[in-house]
Amino acid sequence: MWHANYIAVDWGTTNRRAWLIDSNSDVVGEFDDNLGLMSVPVGGFDAAAADIRHQLGDHPMLLAGMVGSDKGWHQAGYVPCPANAESLAASVLWIEPMRTGIVPGVCQIEGHADVMRGEEVQVLGAQIIANLSPDAVICHPGTHSKWIQLRNGQISQFQTAMTGEIFNLLKTTSILSDQMTGEVSNNASFQAGLKDARDGVPLLGALFAVRARYLLQSLPLADASYVSGLLIGNDVKAGLAQARPDACITLIGRPDLCHLYGSAIAEAGFKTTHVDGSEACRAGIRSIIDHFTTGIGH
Amino acid sequence: MWHANYIAVDWGTTNRRAWLIDSNSDVVGEFDDNLGLMSVPVGGFDAAAADIRHQLGDHPMLLAGMVGSDKGWHQAGYVPCPANAESLAASVLWIEPMRTGIVPGVCQIEGHADVMRGEEVQVLGAQIIANLSPDAVICHPGTHSKWIQLRNGQISQFQTAMTGEIFNLLKTTSILSDQMTGEVSNNASFQAGLKDARDGVPLLGALFAVRARYLLQSLPLADASYVSGLLIGNDVKAGLAQARPDACITLIGRPDLCHLYGSAIAEAGFKTTHVDGSEACRAGIRSIIDHFTTGIGH
Repeated sequence: MWHANYIAVDWGTTNRRAWLIDSNSDVVGEFDDNLGLMSVPVGGFDAAAADIRHQLGDHPMLLAGMVGSDKGWHQAGYVPCPANAESLAASVLWIEPMRTGIVPGVCQIEGHADVMRGEEVQVLGAQIIANLSPDAVICHPGTHSKWIQLRNGQISQFQTAMTGEIFNLLKTTSILSDQMTGEVSNNASFQAGLKDARDGVPLLGALFAVRARYLLQSLPLADASYVSGLLIGNDVKAGLAQARPDACITLIGRPDLCHLYGSAIAEAGFKTTHVDGSEACRAGIRSIIDHFTTGIGH
Repeated sequence: MWHANYIAVDWGTTNRRAWLIDSNSDVVGEFDDNLGLMSVPVGGFDAAAADIRHQLGDHPMLLAGMVGSDKGWHQAGYVPCPANAESLAASVLWIEPMRTGIVPGVCQIEGHADVMRGEEVQVLGAQIIANLSPDAVICHPGTHSKWIQLRNGQISQFQTAMTGEIFNLLKTTSILSDQMTGEVSNNASFQAGLKDARDGVPLLGALFAVRARYLLQSLPLADASYVSGLLIGNDVKAGLAQARPDACITLIGRPDLCHLYGSAIAEAGFKTTHVDGSEACRAGIRSIIDHFTTGIGH
């Protein structure tokens, strides 16, 4: 049944995107809205999921992202590293057998504890559409940025950083909020933040210095771009710590964030390439579907 | 007039404390309340200051702390490093000449930009009551922790870290809030946080790992004490970076915080001594008063 039309869904905390895919793998219908997890009323997930079919038709549907978390529709669990399309396909949580499923996340138990949910599908997709090396290093910026190491084409290990969430906390509710107005851009302040991170200026101190520069009225660096550069610079420094010097880092995600991370990675001496997050999501869901075994018998 | 009774005030963002000091330097009256800056209504500072004399008598009054900031009663400015009792006394902001004054803060312009306001008075006091070395290193934990280097008995340079504020943000409004219940104590989780900091585990990643451990249900470390240990450990690591190996670090402030910082500093191989913040404040204000020049003529 997955060889005819199906619906692919990327359902996150703040947004959801859905695509209707036909038998030629073309997108023949789509929508996105703000009905992320935070906007679904208690007990409202069945209706919110039915609404997707109401918009795109009564087709099989595979969902990925935070919709499978403890704050989502149904908990889809995690598959352990090393993970690939086959292991993810085998662990899909079926709400209705072979008709409505949620892709599990990936967890790392050896080394440091870590989890991802949603990014794994984009990684699978990026492998296909960008023809990634089986040992590629992938960076997925966001609220919780991910650095993912492939080995033999599998998601082998990864690390998450709270970069985006800390930025948002500082911007909205900290003593720095007054100084963090305006959009972040790859300007001199952003580059100064990157440099301080590269130079190993301690993060907790560098953040307060933003306030001090403001109070002392020598504030050219005191803005959101500096803080962004400082946080992204620290993130990138940790993420690249184990990358081979000749590695090309694959960035997946929002173009604006990938641009900022790309600049930080380039400053650190590495090449980058960019894969669109939506395209990667669709290709990843397709690759999971391709691994459904006919033995399930539906 | 400052040789008879006077009032010393430590007026911060959330609390204020006031003491009536007699000609023998004994405390003969005192109160503390929650009327910090955040609780004073707009336009209400004159009345709030008058209330202090209403409670302790009509005496000369010297105030220190955030009451002299841009969010306080009157802006008392900053004196630059190197700073001491003499330079602070010379720059007191007089609301009423020689009768009602606010101690300025201290700023650092060379090196990285930094400011303090309130801690400088406690540093002056600690020098006297603990007979500190003229080259002592002082740590003042708090919302914005300070590391202060004395040289020749003067406040020579310092650095501030947003440690306490970041902890509070994470505890109240982050994805880690659910895991950060309970009081912080110097337990195994706190020590694990210190160790991760000492080992150089990147901060932004170590924070997310708290969430991951919770989701994977291997959560013995996933609590407020671990996060506190991680942040204080990073703070202490940066603060001690330039201390001589045989330095004894003087801790000034709240006993609970000084205990946690003391543990972190001891783990790093340094000795500590503790000075009570209130006592240091009173002694610091006394030392500034002692530097008022009679030439002012009031």
